Amino acid sequence: MASHFSAVIRLNVTSFLAVGLICFHVISAFKSPLLSRRGVVSNPETRTNLINYKTYYFEQKIDHFGFIEDATFKQRYLVADQHRHKDGSPILFYTGNEGDITWFCNNTGFMWDVAEELGAMLVFAEHRYYGESLPFGDQSYSDPKYLNYLTSEQALADFAVLIEELKKTVPGAQQSPVIALGGSYGGMLAAWLRMKYPHVVVGALASSAPIWQFPGLVPCGVFYKIVTDDFSKSGSGCSESIRRSWKAIDNVTSTEEGLQWLSSEFRLCTPLKNKEDAMAVKSWLQETWVNLAMVDYPYEANFLQPLPAWPIKVVCQYLKDPSLPDTALLQGIFQAVNVYYNHTGNTQCLNTSQTATGNLGYIGWYYQACTEMVMPMCSDGVNDMFEAQMWDFQAFSDECYGQFGVRPRADWAITVYGGKNISSHSNIIFSNGGLDPWSGGGVTQKISGSLVVIMIPEGAHHLDLRYNNAYDPQSVLNARDLEVQYMKKWIKEAADSKSPSNHLP
Amino acid sequence: MASHFSAVIRLNVTSFLAVGLICFHVISAFKSPLLSRRGVVSNPETRTNLINYKTYYFEQKIDHFGFIEDATFKQRYLVADQHRHKDGSPILFYTGNEGDITWFCNNTGFMWDVAEELGAMLVFAEHRYYGESLPFGDQSYSDPKYLNYLTSEQALADFAVLIEELKKTVPGAQQSPVIALGGSYGGMLAAWLRMKYPHVVVGALASSAPIWQFPGLVPCGVFYKIVTDDFSKSGSGCSESIRRSWKAIDNVTSTEEGLQWLSSEFRLCTPLKNKEDAMAVKSWLQETWVNLAMVDYPYEANFLQPLPAWPIKVVCQYLKDPSLPDTALLQGIFQAVNVYYNHTGNTQCLNTSQTATGNLGYIGWYYQACTEMVMPMCSDGVNDMFEAQMWDFQAFSDECYGQFGVRPRADWAITVYGGKNISSHSNIIFSNGGLDPWSGGGVTQKISGSLVVIMIPEGAHHLDLRYNNAYDPQSVLNARDLEVQYMKKWIKEAADSKSPSNHLP
Repeated sequence: MASHFSAVIRLNVTSFLAVGLICFHVISAFKSPLLSRRGVVSNPETRTNLINYKTYYFEQKIDHFGFIEDATFKQRYLVADQHRHKDGSPILFYTGNEGDITWFCNNTGFMWDVAEELGAMLVFAEHRYYGESLPFGDQSYSDPKYLNYLTSEQALADFAVLIEELKKTVPGAQQSPVIALGGSYGGMLAAWLRMKYPHVVVGALASSAPIWQFPGLVPCGVFYKIVTDDFSKSGSGCSESIRRSWKAIDNVTSTEEGLQWLSSEFRLCTPLKNKEDAMAVKSWLQETWVNLAMVDYPYEANFLQPLPAWPIKVVCQYLKDPSLPDTALLQGIFQAVNVYYNHTGNTQCLNTSQTATGNLGYIGWYYQACTEMVMPMCSDGVNDMFEAQMWDFQAFSDECYGQFGVRPRADWAITVYGGKNISSHSNIIFSNGGLDPWSGGGVTQKISGSLVVIMIPEGAHHLDLRYNNAYDPQSVLNARDLEVQYMKKWIKEAADSKSPSNHLP
Repeated sequence: MASHFSAVIRLNVTSFLAVGLICFHVISAFKSPLLSRRGVVSNPETRTNLINYKTYYFEQKIDHFGFIEDATFKQRYLVADQHRHKDGSPILFYTGNEGDITWFCNNTGFMWDVAEELGAMLVFAEHRYYGESLPFGDQSYSDPKYLNYLTSEQALADFAVLIEELKKTVPGAQQSPVIALGGSYGGMLAAWLRMKYPHVVVGALASSAPIWQFPGLVPCGVFYKIVTDDFSKSGSGCSESIRRSWKAIDNVTSTEEGLQWLSSEFRLCTPLKNKEDAMAVKSWLQETWVNLAMVDYPYEANFLQPLPAWPIKVVCQYLKDPSLPDTALLQGIFQAVNVYYNHTGNTQCLNTSQTATGNLGYIGWYYQACTEMVMPMCSDGVNDMFEAQMWDFQAFSDECYGQFGVRPRADWAITVYGGKNISSHSNIIFSNGGLDPWSGGGVTQKISGSLVVIMIPEGAHHLDLRYNNAYDPQSVLNARDLEVQYMKKWIKEAADSKSPSNHLP
């Protein structure tokens, strides 16, 4: 069974769906002049000092939903309580997603920006199977049987149990209202935590959370359509050039000579040897464009490599003329991806097997996509700039079975989390960026009075969760203000209602 | 591991906690003149004709919360659609509890009584591991490893998946609002189904559902206190006689002669041989008194054996003088239990290893109590008529470990279902009978506008779910009227709001 895992990374690159998967999260640490609207700090060096937390580990049951497996593992969580000055003050609880929690902690500046104003304790809880929170230690990914407890339901139960424990054991926290926050998959978890455990969290901020990117809820093409729109809007001829590039690659790499030429022009670390390698280059390019759409932030930011402000605009400067001959067009494509991979000019060669940070757990997320997180994606090459590719559930299911010995359950996420029928829930903010491809599967239309939708037209992937920045568009400043207002409202309502004790005197 | 099971039945009898467990459900099919308030039928023979359903089986995943175990089992469910006359009409869905679903179907007359008025389709879904719905067939109880999927969460998921399937496949049901109904543990499931899957059911009627009978939520003595009150109210000297009987049994059975005397006086099928057997008799008596409290219905009813109307009053006729000498007192006790076990006069001898119907799954429920359903009970012999017995979690845990190789998780049910913090939920009716010992752990005080509490002072265990009867007290008639009003309200609200489709056109 262990051999199931041998080809994962490779598949992640070549699999169509993995494009969506691998790119689910690309948050960058920014480096740019800062303006704090809440008067805290004004430059990134000070910000680093701000991020001051203690690391703890909590003994979680490996299986919350069965009792034969009674062992525990150490779930990591980070606590910053320097802004908490009285009993019953709120707790902002980051529902960790598919990666190292310290990385999310460092990249969720919003929580640090508002901690003082809310007098809040910050908690960042790591998601099981990511970072250091490995249920079976080094063995966790060694065999599919150990992955059986990697589900969103188990993760939500971890969060609920941990919050209950904190309220019991942290002095003065017993009456503290807890608000869940998260971005991307973490935002989905924040929303779901409020839906499934409303007695544990009084509300949730779900930023860029595509809870509707499930079968039948939104058209499968919406994701790549938005990516394409971002490029179309960022420069004349831009998306058309990319749309044409796929055929150009096919043409050029149809000969041995062409493979060599492309390897050289693209400064690839590993030269292309055959048609399959050329296909891998196309997947890598596709992921790169997707990543750019997600991190199309209005200021210089530091992702894996530093990126300029509005990176897609910079990219599009090299993609103005789709009518160029193949080789000239591809030379422009190289210049364009070079913006993403070599903004500093220090990159020696381009490595097509990596497109995003090592802080994310790709295999873990791949397993989740192969089980519950079935998020159909497709492209048609007409409404988007990518090669046409249908959503083929059966092929995907077979790939998952080959990889992990499990098959995805297409309907389960909708059955368990409600799909579009979420109106009976309350106190959830769904914020979405208009530039973010994941907004296509997000909640972008008002559902009810206390399910709030906030749109940030100029925002990429969960821009609102990042630190305030001098170059932030007004829409994200307004969004953060509104988010704080709602959080204050929930906190006040919780104080007014006083939940009954679950413990006899 | 299989040997774990060998002593279960015996332990159920001798274990203190099992008293509560084994008696959780004692619903009887009545036999008495009937008055239908909704003009349907007037005698039990006609009623039997009314119960006209078809039996189906649905392929359920054995494990909804993990993907390695991908096998399915056949979940049984019963459907009566003779009252459903148009598309979109409601579905009343009985969330089966710890027993054979046909038995619950036959004993939930309320649903049959209201089906025509609501134009509703009735569905009775069997709980996994009970009746015919055995995930591993005959092996299901052969080894604790097979019991790993016996949890309330899995059962709720079964119900949610089944409802989604029915709405997809039954013509005209796509827009049908579904209301969950259940009594006792089934009532807990109905409430929890609405809490966890509000997109699947628009509301729930949770009758006699002790969702607060968990650690720290209510005093552990409340259950036996209510049993005692029932006996105190039913005859002078009654509860005092029972309180004195324990010591009388100890005294009498301290000699070989006394053991023989008691065996003969009580007409026991198996004569007592030693002190342990005498203790088992005490447990059996205790369970009998509890059972009587649960089925203290106002009309003649047929449980395992037929019972007279208000059976505790009849019992108490034999327990008027607590000051009698031990042997005379115990002769009265025998007359009293004889009311329960031999109302017809046909019983040859009394069998102390059985106190309730064979339609319940005792081992399954015992496993559930040993895992999630940790319901503390205690007695002190002062506020109740039983021998003092502390709630000893550790001893219970050890017993469970010996029996099934699992340990109960005392806090889990509260973490997952919210304990007393349920105010953010909606559309749940909690009905409780004042005579029912389980009302001590029920929701008997108003929580919020749409969490409705209905008290039936003269009601025993989920009297409201039974057929209308000429001898019903006014309080249960009012309760049923109110329940129907709320169900109509939910149905109307669902029709007005029109839930969004989870399927693209």
